[in-house]
Amino acid sequence: MNFIVRESTPKDMPQVLGLIKELATFEKEPDAVEVTEELLKEAGFNSDPMFTCFVAEVDSEIVGMALVYFRFSTWKGRSLHLEDLIVKDKMRGSGIGKELYTKVIQYAYNKKVKRIEWAVLNWNNRAIKFYERSGATVLKDWYIAQMDEAGIKIYLENLE
Amino acid sequence: MNFIVRESTPKDMPQVLGLIKELATFEKEPDAVEVTEELLKEAGFNSDPMFTCFVAEVDSEIVGMALVYFRFSTWKGRSLHLEDLIVKDKMRGSGIGKELYTKVIQYAYNKKVKRIEWAVLNWNNRAIKFYERSGATVLKDWYIAQMDEAGIKIYLENLE
Repeated sequence: MNFIVRESTPKDMPQVLGLIKELATFEKEPDAVEVTEELLKEAGFNSDPMFTCFVAEVDSEIVGMALVYFRFSTWKGRSLHLEDLIVKDKMRGSGIGKELYTKVIQYAYNKKVKRIEWAVLNWNNRAIKFYERSGATVLKDWYIAQMDEAGIKIYLENLE
Repeated sequence: MNFIVRESTPKDMPQVLGLIKELATFEKEPDAVEVTEELLKEAGFNSDPMFTCFVAEVDSEIVGMALVYFRFSTWKGRSLHLEDLIVKDKMRGSGIGKELYTKVIQYAYNKKVKRIEWAVLNWNNRAIKFYERSGATVLKDWYIAQMDEAGIKIYLENLE
């Protein structure tokens, strides 16, 4: 199959949002996506962008994406976070996921970060095996904690 | 006890690094800290800082810190990541940790982020209970994957 992997432009964001919603459905939370095309265009392409997004394209259709941004590890220094790597269901097994993954690793190498980090669902054995075979370490002794907007508000309201 | 919580300055970084090393020892990885005072000063206080750090001070001694930066959730939008919240061992139970935690939540509220996120070791029951009581959700179905500098290099060298 002929596909290209390239950095995204604002015009890609409607299709990128489609992929984000497809992943949310796969992860069993179809209603969790609150971002909009406008927000993606604003956040990713202003003068101080909040992320970099790579897309895989086949005949002008966006069939995959990888979205990254920088983080800071107090142990290691600057790191790259891979927030999402998504390939359209019908395109799985075509090598597109591997190519996007490689693009992210090349980007991390060029930016001289100390490590790349991402999260993977603990029941997604296929992904875990892929990551481990590629040289990544999958840490099993951490939980992820989150406080959402409502929680933030309630916490502050209940302070003495 | 009299303490103040304030945003850090470059001058605080030597003591902040001391706290980072103390936490690494608690987490059973005393040799994992590669960052230096110079790196913290550069990364945190240049024109495009990679983090914001709050410190707790008692009689000119830094006895606690919380370090945060922004992330981007493809579901929710801008979020705040709490990378570390550290209180000196001798100061535990003094309310300093709670005050730093509150400072982070206030900062998140002021910055209008969609959520705050952090990681907690799955054997640190005291911390997990504290976070849950405060209104956070602790997700137990994710693993954290990491590829370090050596892994990045090996992956790219082994590409066809």
